[in-house]
Amino acid sequence: MDIGGLGEFSLIASIRRRMEGKYPPEVALGIGDDCAVLQPQAGMEWVITTDTQVEDVHFRREWLTPYQIGWRAMAVNLSDIAAMGAQPFGALAALALPAAIEAAFFDQLLDGLCDLGLRHQCPLVGGNLARDPAHLSLTLTVLGHVPRSHSVRRGGARAGDDIWVSGQLGGSAAGLRTFLQTIPLADPVCTALRRRYTQPQPRVREAIFLRASGCLTSMIDLSDGLAGDLGHLCEESGVGAQIVAAALPLQAGVREVSAVLGEDPLELALRGGEDFELCCTARPGTLGSLLDGFRAQFGIDLTRIGSMTSERSLQLVHADGSQALLSPQAFDHFHG
Amino acid sequence: MDIGGLGEFSLIASIRRRMEGKYPPEVALGIGDDCAVLQPQAGMEWVITTDTQVEDVHFRREWLTPYQIGWRAMAVNLSDIAAMGAQPFGALAALALPAAIEAAFFDQLLDGLCDLGLRHQCPLVGGNLARDPAHLSLTLTVLGHVPRSHSVRRGGARAGDDIWVSGQLGGSAAGLRTFLQTIPLADPVCTALRRRYTQPQPRVREAIFLRASGCLTSMIDLSDGLAGDLGHLCEESGVGAQIVAAALPLQAGVREVSAVLGEDPLELALRGGEDFELCCTARPGTLGSLLDGFRAQFGIDLTRIGSMTSERSLQLVHADGSQALLSPQAFDHFHG
Repeated sequence: MDIGGLGEFSLIASIRRRMEGKYPPEVALGIGDDCAVLQPQAGMEWVITTDTQVEDVHFRREWLTPYQIGWRAMAVNLSDIAAMGAQPFGALAALALPAAIEAAFFDQLLDGLCDLGLRHQCPLVGGNLARDPAHLSLTLTVLGHVPRSHSVRRGGARAGDDIWVSGQLGGSAAGLRTFLQTIPLADPVCTALRRRYTQPQPRVREAIFLRASGCLTSMIDLSDGLAGDLGHLCEESGVGAQIVAAALPLQAGVREVSAVLGEDPLELALRGGEDFELCCTARPGTLGSLLDGFRAQFGIDLTRIGSMTSERSLQLVHADGSQALLSPQAFDHFHG
Repeated sequence: MDIGGLGEFSLIASIRRRMEGKYPPEVALGIGDDCAVLQPQAGMEWVITTDTQVEDVHFRREWLTPYQIGWRAMAVNLSDIAAMGAQPFGALAALALPAAIEAAFFDQLLDGLCDLGLRHQCPLVGGNLARDPAHLSLTLTVLGHVPRSHSVRRGGARAGDDIWVSGQLGGSAAGLRTFLQTIPLADPVCTALRRRYTQPQPRVREAIFLRASGCLTSMIDLSDGLAGDLGHLCEESGVGAQIVAAALPLQAGVREVSAVLGEDPLELALRGGEDFELCCTARPGTLGSLLDGFRAQFGIDLTRIGSMTSERSLQLVHADGSQALLSPQAFDHFHG
């Protein structure tokens, strides 16, 4: 049975049933009316973001399972909520789908989307289903809450602040390249790289931990690549940054993939994009004491990769002391 | 110059500049960060909706100007906010576009989207731009506010309530048919019908007026056609409805278009869809005294078209007293 045969309203009813009993106190009315109704809680501010995943632009059906297509659409949005230091609490899913999509495919896509959402207390509170004859297109909008005046923005970094990144870089771009080209890699390494692309982990809890430390001055998630995203952060803050090349935490396998492709492995970290790690700035010397606790709680590292500078440029410092000016050019969806 | 040449970040910067100084108090931070930051106001609840317009499914580029494409994408969402009796205050626009779209086309699309939004105090507070090689696809998410516990829902209608609709019905579907087929019609009539399809007017102020009367028990906007939408309302309220065929306020030209096509003109009102009028229920005899004020303020009528019933079916009563059971089947986006 394809979803055309099931019909729009039967699909919406099935999503509504999935969400029964799963709404947090902020959601007074979920799926089933013209709008969802939300109840702001005292002392909180809310954040909201939206992001689209288009088939054959952001993913191909032969690379991702239906479950991963749904997961990824939720992940990229949760990562933006995380970048504000906020707790997600509800999502709207606008799904445009060919009518010939099988019901089982649709169910698995929703499984991925809802599994990741509910892991982070973020049920679907609304959405829209439309026919798209060309391809799958998934636009999610996600809401989060954060104590009033405590959202972490891009514009708060100051010269002298330390720059930190969570986890490891370059994995997603390297994983994507293994789909595009056969690259000799040990199976577990290849699987781990691909997983960074197919099922990214938004750093929601990690971001709340960091925000709650009170040390952060700014934060952004790494969706377009470190050079571009840190470039955005510098621009909003009116400062520059100096990154230490040797400090960049490259994921295992990134060097091997780069070697096969004849690329500089740093490029995958700086411009590869879609690692969905956090990049944050903190007052000098303040986050160091939290590193062990962070690693113990989340199983990933927090790495200091450089400092903010008063000179408004983005510099990469190599091991021999030489410096290169990084163009802040991020991944551009129309050039990409 | 096409938008591929301008690039994603230049386009975002231009949208951001458009919105400077236009944010209401609810918007603490608009375009330019990972998320928009929102400040709930005391005593209010919020409503949120999302809707997608896909090229060649919901519209064709030869039917709509770029301005109207943008207008329509905003209108269909504002209509859902209106259906709750809420005041919109911010929108997120996730636009997926072919890179070959001209910069002037993109600007005009934004003009339409922003003009209608700002007429209703609803600026863009965020969004996403993605490449879509196949076609235009516009997903808007709109937020609104309404005094706490005063949102008007689908589930509050009771047997005996009067059923009312704003404005006139069938015009959008008739207008659409004039694009599909040459139909002999006086120019002003044809223009008025087409305008219902190309540039619908969401009934935001009208809905707030009606909600503030305190008489409403339920409301829905007419996007799928009266039969389908009233069917949703009946289902959520656990009641039925009886509609008087002769009372349905058909727009001028609907009968002529139906005659040419050999269709029943009532079908265009009942199933044509996309009129984006309001359908509401009120306690018996309560709204009548407001009709003159409504007409004077908004230039459109409010028409009583029937009553809610305890029998859970949707009946159409003809002038000769005969009754027909209406299937509540609404427009289905996968069958449509």
